[in-house]
Amino acid sequence: MSKQELEVVGPDVEGCCPALLTAPLDEEQAEALAKVFKALGDPIRLRLLSMIASRAGGEVCVCDLTPHFDLSQPTVSHHLKLLRQAGLIGCERRGTWVYYWLLPETTDQLAGILTRPAGQPLPEPVDVASGAAS
Amino acid sequence: MSKQELEVVGPDVEGCCPALLTAPLDEEQAEALAKVFKALGDPIRLRLLSMIASRAGGEVCVCDLTPHFDLSQPTVSHHLKLLRQAGLIGCERRGTWVYYWLLPETTDQLAGILTRPAGQPLPEPVDVASGAAS
Repeated sequence: MSKQELEVVGPDVEGCCPALLTAPLDEEQAEALAKVFKALGDPIRLRLLSMIASRAGGEVCVCDLTPHFDLSQPTVSHHLKLLRQAGLIGCERRGTWVYYWLLPETTDQLAGILTRPAGQPLPEPVDVASGAAS
Repeated sequence: MSKQELEVVGPDVEGCCPALLTAPLDEEQAEALAKVFKALGDPIRLRLLSMIASRAGGEVCVCDLTPHFDLSQPTVSHHLKLLRQAGLIGCERRGTWVYYWLLPETTDQLAGILTRPAGQPLPEPVDVASGAAS
């Protein structure tokens, strides 16, 4: 059975954004990376991603996702499409239903982008309450 | 000199979202975490964050950020406010200018949320080109 074609408009994150925290991003890198974070910037999509990622067995039928939301199936499918286009999940149609799974390479890359280089110290703590650096 | 008050509407990420990839998020957790990812889901804000995070000395004047963008200073300041409200950066006004720095606790927490538990294997590779699992 063929894999549903992935219309991935998201970035090759590994290629585009090695250094969010250690060097300024250029415009192209920022555009690509923003698409992935934008896909994550919605509570429905985060819940869908967490359901898919944490599923024992590694994949989940859309028919098992929809009942958790007070949304139509087309709306849920639209959110899933945005996650798919960002490269966060993969999918395959089998008969009536589409099955989804996490693409951990993308979350791994985002984790890497958000991880400080080893040995980079935290800045001096700020005591917000007293309004002064401690 | 007093710290500018932080109107942080973003989440206590550490408290809210320990398990994006290992357990389904509840609605409240997803709402909180989505606000932070939404703040990151814009190329201007990602460029600003990367400029601030990678700044030698740890902080940067808004007057040194604005010239990198074809945007008015109020627009740049608005984007900075959204990053600040998400808990990603801190700031302090000193005379005419506001200075910004990374709050690495938040990016650390996001990195943790996006990191798979140790030992969790990658799924079977999918050969997208041929449309079949390899």
